[in-house]
Amino acid sequence: MTHNKSYTLAALAELLDVKLIGDEQCEITGLATLKGAGPGQLSFLSNPIYAEQLVSSRASAILIEEKFIESCPGNKLISASPYVAFAKATQFFDNSPKNPAGIHASACVDETAVLGKNVSIGANAVIEADARLADNVVVGAGCYVGEAAVLGESCRLHSNVTLYHRITLGLNVEIHSGSVVGADGFGFAFDGTKSVKIHQLGSVVIGDDVEIGAGTTIDRGALENTEIHNGVKIDNQVQIAHNCKIGAHSIICGCVAIAGSVTVGRYCIMGGASGAVGHISIADKVQVSAMSLVSQSITEAGKYSSGTIQMKTAQWKRNALRFQQLDSISKRLKEIENSTDKG
Amino acid sequence: MTHNKSYTLAALAELLDVKLIGDEQCEITGLATLKGAGPGQLSFLSNPIYAEQLVSSRASAILIEEKFIESCPGNKLISASPYVAFAKATQFFDNSPKNPAGIHASACVDETAVLGKNVSIGANAVIEADARLADNVVVGAGCYVGEAAVLGESCRLHSNVTLYHRITLGLNVEIHSGSVVGADGFGFAFDGTKSVKIHQLGSVVIGDDVEIGAGTTIDRGALENTEIHNGVKIDNQVQIAHNCKIGAHSIICGCVAIAGSVTVGRYCIMGGASGAVGHISIADKVQVSAMSLVSQSITEAGKYSSGTIQMKTAQWKRNALRFQQLDSISKRLKEIENSTDKG
Amino acid sequence: MTHNKSYTLAALAELLDVKLIGDEQCEITGLATLKGAGPGQLSFLSNPIYAEQLVSSRASAILIEEKFIESCPGNKLISASPYVAFAKATQFFDNSPKNPAGIHASACVDETAVLGKNVSIGANAVIEADARLADNVVVGAGCYVGEAAVLGESCRLHSNVTLYHRITLGLNVEIHSGSVVGADGFGFAFDGTKSVKIHQLGSVVIGDDVEIGAGTTIDRGALENTEIHNGVKIDNQVQIAHNCKIGAHSIICGCVAIAGSVTVGRYCIMGGASGAVGHISIADKVQVSAMSLVSQSITEAGKYSSGTIQMKTAQWKRNALRFQQLDSISKRLKEIENSTDKG
Repeated sequence: MTHNKSYTLAALAELLDVKLIGDEQCEITGLATLKGAGPGQLSFLSNPIYAEQLVSSRASAILIEEKFIESCPGNKLISASPYVAFAKATQFFDNSPKNPAGIHASACVDETAVLGKNVSIGANAVIEADARLADNVVVGAGCYVGEAAVLGESCRLHSNVTLYHRITLGLNVEIHSGSVVGADGFGFAFDGTKSVKIHQLGSVVIGDDVEIGAGTTIDRGALENTEIHNGVKIDNQVQIAHNCKIGAHSIICGCVAIAGSVTVGRYCIMGGASGAVGHISIADKVQVSAMSLVSQSITEAGKYSSGTIQMKTAQWKRNALRFQQLDSISKRLKEIENSTDKG
Repeated sequence: MTHNKSYTLAALAELLDVKLIGDEQCEITGLATLKGAGPGQLSFLSNPIYAEQLVSSRASAILIEEKFIESCPGNKLISASPYVAFAKATQFFDNSPKNPAGIHASACVDETAVLGKNVSIGANAVIEADARLADNVVVGAGCYVGEAAVLGESCRLHSNVTLYHRITLGLNVEIHSGSVVGADGFGFAFDGTKSVKIHQLGSVVIGDDVEIGAGTTIDRGALENTEIHNGVKIDNQVQIAHNCKIGAHSIICGCVAIAGSVTVGRYCIMGGASGAVGHISIADKVQVSAMSLVSQSITEAGKYSSGTIQMKTAQWKRNALRFQQLDSISKRLKEIENSTDKG
Repeated sequence: MTHNKSYTLAALAELLDVKLIGDEQCEITGLATLKGAGPGQLSFLSNPIYAEQLVSSRASAILIEEKFIESCPGNKLISASPYVAFAKATQFFDNSPKNPAGIHASACVDETAVLGKNVSIGANAVIEADARLADNVVVGAGCYVGEAAVLGESCRLHSNVTLYHRITLGLNVEIHSGSVVGADGFGFAFDGTKSVKIHQLGSVVIGDDVEIGAGTTIDRGALENTEIHNGVKIDNQVQIAHNCKIGAHSIICGCVAIAGSVTVGRYCIMGGASGAVGHISIADKVQVSAMSLVSQSITEAGKYSSGTIQMKTAQWKRNALRFQQLDSISKRLKEIENSTDKG
């Protein structure tokens, strides 16, 4: 894909701080996979499985580790981490629109809000009393920033994001459209006939360099704060309930559901549509498989799963019905073992 | 956490209608758990497991049942239901912003809309023709209230809520940001080559004292209405499809997915990320575990689950592969039993 | 339900292009199921199981196949596909509000945007630079249409929809409130201490006649585009990650989660809250059961499932604990079989 930006290979090598072997003047106009690349495009080899594509790829240059130099006939950029270098390259080809500094005429900014330098506030955005927006903050069209919310430097809210009152975002937090931070946690006390609301008195505190996808919800704490620590990346449609603490640099994939008061460690990966429930703690560096449920604390790093593997429905059904007899099956097996031992 | 409000213990006892034993003049400035509490804070004992913390807690006063009076050395408030009393106390420490009565200058309110007394309409909200908002209704910034929608007294829409046309809300319904009530139910008739839309002619009728979290969707009915009965509490990111009926006082936790035409009884609890599918009925007082799927009607109160329990992925995989042979395992076991019986 | 529209049976027969047997002047004022119908209502028989209701139904007319003529005593409309005919009938009783052509005074439309004939832009909507809206496009209140987005003829965005920059919609695409198309795909390269963002340079291309429910998110591609092909119908709260391709006429039910780079075939049905993960491909005409996870490519049409069936929690727990021993159970069974064979 051509992205309307162009660099000489020499310029790109400098931007990425990598060594170039090949034609300095070669024009790079886009990025692609080894297989998908064509002339003018830069590609990368990260997984050695694809090393044989180094020869057949039509890319004009390829980011590789030093050890693949001999296998790569064309222009190459040498990096210890080609995938990370490629990730960095994407920013130079990103031509998404930049929001202009200034307050759009249709935005409603309370006069007590405090705005830093170079702040951009989009059309029809609403900034409530006592909100504080640091330098270079971008608030997209239609966003709502509640009373006394605090946005650190270079935070960016895409359009139609909602921040409730007194939410705090660190530096460089990016939140995509439709997400809601700081709605009431879900807490009620049952009085025998009806649910009595527990007003949610805490807030949400989000660290630096956090990215939050579209349509995600993070609730405010009941008594204390819900916390999202530095470097956490959260995908779309994630639900993080009140009082959760998500440890630094963890990755929360799409549609994950984390129930109230769960603590997730640092450098964890919660796979897509996985869940955690029950006031539990999850250790650092835990990886939970897609659509798996964690209902007991995990104290040891590693990979965890629940569920079963897909089958044709007809076969699945026969097995799933037997699952309902599994305890009985186990006991009957034990009985046979016992009788055999005796025999 | 200190919440900027302060009451003497005597005043709080009166507000909560409970008996005070201790210092009437003690100032309470916040609420906390037994373990987390410090001076100035009120805590509570609900689960007897934590009774030993009554002595060590630094709380300035504790809500307890009468039977714990001897175990609690400091100031105490006596209640038959300390947790419910605590829930009630949260409202007195809630200092979330109050929306000012009146229509914000930037809101678009159709001239045929009928507004009660003391209605608050936020910035950039849109109220369509023939909508009726009863007394004390709050419509947050950026909300959309469709044609002929009806909002009962004291309803509150947080910012960026969408109500489609002809939706009806009872008294005191609260809806959090990003939620959508009344979008088209998902209905199509397949004509052999393509899906023909079934226009959704019903609506959504929501009873009194219902709370709906952030990012939740409730679809309008196909021919009749989707119904959410009195006192139902719905968390974030819940999907309730067309024609569902959710019985009074049921609790629908985050990320629950309820497919079309499902009837949920009264006083049910659908655990987080659980689901129900297949035009089924669920009896009163049923509790469904987190991430469990209900695909057959439930006629008896009680707790229901599906799925498996988390394991390390390596072990899980071995077992999950065996699940695919479970019917065969069962049959082979039966064969051995038969041959043993014969032997 | 009466829907404020009325047709003679003769007029309806002509609109639906079906044969009428009975009273041409009979007034039809609404639609209903056989069981729910009353005087003035048209019903239908699709599933032969309900054929006996043809006699007891109080409907004023019934859409039936020819073979049921003898079983249906009253007015009837004869169709080879009564359910499809009924679906078509719903449009004639749909009285949802029509958005007036023109640009609402409060909308912000960039002067470089290109608008076709008869375009409707609602209150507080924002249309960015170089966006192109073809004839008869409807943009609801509070929508955001990003830079250079393209909306084909007769597209309809309900209120509070967000389209990012350079998204392309085909003809007659309908998107419900709260949905977000074109947010960044979730891509990061881990550099050993932190996640480096992979800027998402692709876009989202949506074909003709696609419907997207409320609160759904479809991410833009990393390098190439995410694609939704013609006739696809997507329900609420669905997440479609970057680089996915959803084949023509597939049905994606509520709360489905499709991870990055998954290809779904044509005429598939992904059941409610099901998922797909792992850069896999799913063949045409595959049906995935509710809450099932597809983690391996499917090459053959048919029905697929994973998970287990609901049980009372007490029983379920016994079985679920045994699941954790299933590999051992299987091996022990094999051992007994071996020893029996030897014996």
